Amino acid sequence: MSFTLHTVDKQTDARLGTLELPHGKIQTPIFMPVGTQGTVKTLHPNDLKDLGAQIILGNTYHLSIRPGADLIQEMGGLHRFSNWDKPILTDSGGFQVWSLAKLRKITEEGVRFSNHLDGSYMMLSPERSMEIQAQLGSDIAMLFDECPPYPCDRAYAEKSLGLTLRWAQRCKDWVKTHQPRSGEGRQHHFGIVQGSVYADLRRRCAEELAALDFDGYAVGGVSVGEPEEEMLRAIDHAVPFLPKDKPRYAMGLGTPPQLLEMIARGVDMFDCVMPTRLARHGVALTPDGPMHIKNLRWAKDDRPIDEAGHPHVTQFSRAYIRHLFKAGEILSLRLLSFQNLEFYLRLMAQAREAIATGTFGSFKDAFIARYNSNNIV
Amino acid sequence: MSFTLHTVDKQTDARLGTLELPHGKIQTPIFMPVGTQGTVKTLHPNDLKDLGAQIILGNTYHLSIRPGADLIQEMGGLHRFSNWDKPILTDSGGFQVWSLAKLRKITEEGVRFSNHLDGSYMMLSPERSMEIQAQLGSDIAMLFDECPPYPCDRAYAEKSLGLTLRWAQRCKDWVKTHQPRSGEGRQHHFGIVQGSVYADLRRRCAEELAALDFDGYAVGGVSVGEPEEEMLRAIDHAVPFLPKDKPRYAMGLGTPPQLLEMIARGVDMFDCVMPTRLARHGVALTPDGPMHIKNLRWAKDDRPIDEAGHPHVTQFSRAYIRHLFKAGEILSLRLLSFQNLEFYLRLMAQAREAIATGTFGSFKDAFIARYNSNNIV
Repeated sequence: MSFTLHTVDKQTDARLGTLELPHGKIQTPIFMPVGTQGTVKTLHPNDLKDLGAQIILGNTYHLSIRPGADLIQEMGGLHRFSNWDKPILTDSGGFQVWSLAKLRKITEEGVRFSNHLDGSYMMLSPERSMEIQAQLGSDIAMLFDECPPYPCDRAYAEKSLGLTLRWAQRCKDWVKTHQPRSGEGRQHHFGIVQGSVYADLRRRCAEELAALDFDGYAVGGVSVGEPEEEMLRAIDHAVPFLPKDKPRYAMGLGTPPQLLEMIARGVDMFDCVMPTRLARHGVALTPDGPMHIKNLRWAKDDRPIDEAGHPHVTQFSRAYIRHLFKAGEILSLRLLSFQNLEFYLRLMAQAREAIATGTFGSFKDAFIARYNSNNIV
Repeated sequence: MSFTLHTVDKQTDARLGTLELPHGKIQTPIFMPVGTQGTVKTLHPNDLKDLGAQIILGNTYHLSIRPGADLIQEMGGLHRFSNWDKPILTDSGGFQVWSLAKLRKITEEGVRFSNHLDGSYMMLSPERSMEIQAQLGSDIAMLFDECPPYPCDRAYAEKSLGLTLRWAQRCKDWVKTHQPRSGEGRQHHFGIVQGSVYADLRRRCAEELAALDFDGYAVGGVSVGEPEEEMLRAIDHAVPFLPKDKPRYAMGLGTPPQLLEMIARGVDMFDCVMPTRLARHGVALTPDGPMHIKNLRWAKDDRPIDEAGHPHVTQFSRAYIRHLFKAGEILSLRLLSFQNLEFYLRLMAQAREAIATGTFGSFKDAFIARYNSNNIV
């Protein structure tokens, strides 16, 4: 078993674990910065190490369109190509086909679509997605699923779920045929629980995927426009039916308070573009809530954005970063991206520490109260 | 005397020197990366230290418009504001008024213009330029001059030169009144030799400025669209009439071979936006000439851009940097900016070494022959 569960919190379902992957061990709960096109936007791998990233994401959809999976394979895989020697998780491409591609046609075989870059037609299927992720050489490959929209009527959700489960079996068959190797050094594969807002469908999906025995399980079909209550309910509907001895991953989420809510529900892994996307819109995340750096009140403020942050950012004043952002200087995007990712990773480190010391519940409440106060002085 | 001349090359006029400034000593010949808006585009001060920058530039015109000289002064000056603790040179703003501002009106008093950002009217004069540069707190402040266009008829060049010389006297008077302090810790002031393509005007300007006794002397009115021969001739017309015991600075120049040609003519200091601007256009500078990273021939090239470069860049393949650039990823701009500035600074270090060992002439010829061969394999 590559996943070791060290502690489960007594008051909540929060878990402390270690996942051993081909490129190293990661400590859970963990946040994974998103490197869509083979780079975490604005940052150098040295920056990622400075801010403490243990694992990053790569996007199968984007990388397979540009520069192409064959090229990355020829260059020695995504680790070598992007010069990142720690673990990488790749998604299946399914979510981006759903959110970015045009003229999608979903059949039993897979999804045919026109890509968003040059409009040319491509096909993604369970086998093709697993093949591309094998070419990229990620530590964790996600199964190819169908992500239903929100809202979604029951008939569609049920039909979609059938497809996702049949595709999961085909992914497993592909792996069995093409990656017969067992043991710790092999690529890991995570199933994805769908089922929209329907509790029984989520449960059925979780149980059927668990029976197929994957290395970990994700909750998908969240962060698709639904209100926060629905998002947390989707977690509640799925997590209790997933094996306790495997890592659980909530895909594409969320705000810092939402991450703590999901950790309390037994989720171990997260990814989200929010920290880097907010940075590009001039928002810094701090323990007191989001700070809009363009605001005139920071024009002559000599203090750092976040006293508790990393010297890479705290060496600069709010006034200077505001000036850089208003002047369109790239350094501002770097500094805000670094701050926001470091803040997410710091939050995970604090959560792990709180679980280890049996104080997660009070840590969570105090963090959320302070963050939501939005009392930035 | 803050400038120490260690060696003058026997075959050329190349010089090896040290200039002691309030924020540290710099070794000449030297290249100064340009930090137009209080940041060298795409780079963190840590990067600048990694690539070996000893001194950077700030632009009086840009900084006085945004965020404003009063604000920077209130924040403790440009060093503290931008968190750069080594020397800074500021230009006078005159060149940007000439190249960027609209509706300029030049009078004996100074230049009234509409700035390029919001169109509001501003006035720069010798006194105002010196005052702003004192507020910024740079180590070296440039005198406010009038930069004639190219081509320029003799009558205009002569009239303009008169203005530049009278303005130099007014700058000196302002400094005498407002910065009476003497000694090494004081702000340094460099005069600017104008005179367009007219040898006698360049000589007259150099001699009259020398008589006013500044800390150093620049050759201005170059890099304004003239052919390379004219640029080098402007240096030839000015340098012999400047004091040997003061540093000489060729403003806004040039290509790597041009820098060596000017070092051979006794120039000590350079600045140029070319390294960072070329980076933003996807051009990497290498010992074998400029490399266009978008070129298809690098698509699967596993080698670094420049074997002799810094690990910050050599850890990545041409293929990866090409992918990043084509995908519009900011990391590509960072890596190319770092490479190009590091290449310029490496060239200066090599030139200093060659002067010290009496091999500058052969070093220069070999470097230029290889660079111009453009034989990038």
